[in-house]
Amino acid sequence: MRAYNFSAGPSQLPLEVLEEAQRELLDFAGTGMSVTEISHRNKAFSAIVEEGEALLRELLHIPSDYAVLFVQGGASQQFAAVPLNLMHKGKADYIVTGNFAKKAFQEGKIYGDAACVASSEDKTYSYIPDLDKIAFRKNTDYVHICSNNTIFGTRYVEFPKTEAPLVADMSSEILSREVDVSKFGVIYAGAQKNLAPAGVTIVIARRDLIQDPLPACPTMLKWKVQDENGSLYNTPPCFSIYMAVLVLRHLKKLGGVEAINKQNEYKAGLLYDFIDNSSFYKNGVEKKYRSIMNVPFVTPNAELDAKFVKEATASGLVSLKGHRLVGGMRASIYNAMPVEGVTALIAFMQKFEKENAV
Amino acid sequence: MRAYNFSAGPSQLPLEVLEEAQRELLDFAGTGMSVTEISHRNKAFSAIVEEGEALLRELLHIPSDYAVLFVQGGASQQFAAVPLNLMHKGKADYIVTGNFAKKAFQEGKIYGDAACVASSEDKTYSYIPDLDKIAFRKNTDYVHICSNNTIFGTRYVEFPKTEAPLVADMSSEILSREVDVSKFGVIYAGAQKNLAPAGVTIVIARRDLIQDPLPACPTMLKWKVQDENGSLYNTPPCFSIYMAVLVLRHLKKLGGVEAINKQNEYKAGLLYDFIDNSSFYKNGVEKKYRSIMNVPFVTPNAELDAKFVKEATASGLVSLKGHRLVGGMRASIYNAMPVEGVTALIAFMQKFEKENAV
Repeated sequence: MRAYNFSAGPSQLPLEVLEEAQRELLDFAGTGMSVTEISHRNKAFSAIVEEGEALLRELLHIPSDYAVLFVQGGASQQFAAVPLNLMHKGKADYIVTGNFAKKAFQEGKIYGDAACVASSEDKTYSYIPDLDKIAFRKNTDYVHICSNNTIFGTRYVEFPKTEAPLVADMSSEILSREVDVSKFGVIYAGAQKNLAPAGVTIVIARRDLIQDPLPACPTMLKWKVQDENGSLYNTPPCFSIYMAVLVLRHLKKLGGVEAINKQNEYKAGLLYDFIDNSSFYKNGVEKKYRSIMNVPFVTPNAELDAKFVKEATASGLVSLKGHRLVGGMRASIYNAMPVEGVTALIAFMQKFEKENAV
Repeated sequence: MRAYNFSAGPSQLPLEVLEEAQRELLDFAGTGMSVTEISHRNKAFSAIVEEGEALLRELLHIPSDYAVLFVQGGASQQFAAVPLNLMHKGKADYIVTGNFAKKAFQEGKIYGDAACVASSEDKTYSYIPDLDKIAFRKNTDYVHICSNNTIFGTRYVEFPKTEAPLVADMSSEILSREVDVSKFGVIYAGAQKNLAPAGVTIVIARRDLIQDPLPACPTMLKWKVQDENGSLYNTPPCFSIYMAVLVLRHLKKLGGVEAINKQNEYKAGLLYDFIDNSSFYKNGVEKKYRSIMNVPFVTPNAELDAKFVKEATASGLVSLKGHRLVGGMRASIYNAMPVEGVTALIAFMQKFEKENAV
C-alpha cells in the first residue's frame, strides 16, 4: 500500500510520475538505454535539459533576461555559491528566519562582511520580521532570505523591497505559489521537495548578476560557467533532471502554478482550520506567516506527540515527526500531497484526540 | 531491444540492477514509498549508506584508517575539494595525462602553488610519463594523478612512489581492477562509469589527511564535515547512492573486483587483439599503458569513422563516437559491458572492414 508521506524532504512525488519513470526505466525515449545510462551529450538528453528550462520559464513566468540553470548538489551548496558569485563589494545582508537561513548567513561570513539585519530567533522562528522596520545597509551586493522555512513552518507573505538584488532560497516552496520573479535577483531551490529526487538544484539568476565570481570560487560553483555551457559543463545529475521534467510536465497538465497554488491553499486551510478549532492540537506560528507547505503542530505533551507519530505511522501516515529543533509533529504537504492525504491526516487526528483526551 | 552501450559516461549499468530498481521504484524496502521519496534520516535509507560503505570497504579492501564518503556532484567538484582540503603548505604536484588530469591541475592552481611535474600532452596523451624520471618537488601536500584517462584510453600500470600523499582520480576505473588502497592518500571517483547514475562521487581518504580545510572551502566541500556526519550532513543524492549499493551487491555476487578484473582484461584483450591484427583499424596508445576501460580506435580516414559510427548505431552498438579532442571511435567497456557486447562489436568491425576495404 502506498503511504501518505509527510516527509519534509526528500518527499512525495506524483504517483503518475513515478509510474512513468518506472515504465521507461530500461528504455528511455526509444534509445534502448536507461535514462541513467545515456551520455549527457546525447541529443535525447540535451532535449530533456532544454525542455526542463522551457517548462520552468513557462510555469514560473521567468523573464527572458534571467538564466535558468540546473546545478549539482543541494541548496546548501548554493549557500557558498551565492557569496562566491555575487559578493563583489564584499558586503551582504541576511534575514535569518530559520535553520537554513542561518546556515546561509554563516556561509556568507566566510566570504565577506555578511550581516544579519533581522532575525526571528527570539521566538523560535515562529514569525517573519516586520519588513518595514529592517535597516538594510547601503551599498551591499545582495539581501538574502529563505522564503519558506521548512522546519518552523513559516513563509514570507510579501517580500522585502531592497536596493540590492534580493536573493531567495525557495527550496521548500518552489512552484507551490505564484511569485513575481522580476522582483528577485536570484532564486534558487534544491529539488527534493517540490521538483525531483535529491541531487539537483535550480538557479534562476538575472543575467547581469552572472559575472566572474570571487577568485576562490570552485569552477563547479561558477554560475557563469554553468550558464555558458547550458548546465552541461560536466556530467549533470541526469536522473534528477529527467524526473524534474516529468514533474514539470505533470504540473503543467494540472494547470500550472496558479492551479496548484489554489490547491495548496485549500489543503493547508483544511489542516490549519482543524487545528485552530481544536483545543488538543496547537500550531505556534503567527497566523499571517503560516507556511502552506510545512505545518508543525503539537498535542498537549511530548509523550502524546511520540504516541501520535507511532500510531500515525502504523496507519500509513508516515514521516510526521517534527524536526529535532522544534519537536512535536510536522506535516509537509507539498505539491504532490493529494487532498486525500490531508483529509486522512485530519481524520486520524480526530480519532487520536478522542482516544487521548486529557 | 536493449542496446550495447559503449558510452564513456554516464554508461551502461548491469541489466539485473536496472530491473531490480524498476521493480521497487514505487515501494522501497516495504516502506510504501519510492527510494526517491524517503527522508535521508529514515532508517531504511541510512542502512543503505552504511551498506554502501561496508561493501566498498570489502570489495576494495579499504584499510580501517581510511574514511569512505559519498559526496554530492561529480569528480570535477573534487578537483577543487582536493586542494581545498589538502593544500595546507600551499604546494602540490600534478601529473597531467589527459583532459581531466589537466582540469584538476588548473583547479589546483586557484588555491596554491600547483606544478605540472610531468605530462604526456606532447603526444596527445597517448602514454603515461616514465615515473622514474619525474622530479617530484620537496615538501608538497600531495601528488595528483588521474589513474585512467577516459578520453585518450590510457592507464597507469604502476603508481608513482611519492613522499607526499598520492591522490588519484579513479572515476573511469574504480572497482575495475585490484589496487592497493594503502598506497594512496586519497582516491576519488565520480559514480557514473562503474558505480551508479551520475550525481554522487566517492571519496576514500586516509583519516589523518582529513583536517580543517582552507578557510575559503565551502562547507559542502569539506571532507571533515562529511566524515563527521556519515555522508549525511545535508540531503545526499539518495537515488544514486541506492543504485550504487545495488551495483556493489551485484559485483560482490560476481566474485568482487578480482573476478571482474579478469573479465575486464579478457574483454579488452579481445578488442585490442582484433585491432592489432587488423590493417584497417588502429589504436594509437603505447601498448603498455592501454586502458582496459576505454579503447579508442580509428579506421583509415575520418569519413569512414563517421560512417562506422552511423552504421554501428543502426546495428544497436551505440555511443561509439570518439571524444572531439581525438576523433575516431571509442569503445568504453566498463564493468557492466558483457563479453557479448565486445564480441558483437568485433563482429561488426569485421563486417564493416570487409565492406569498406580501402
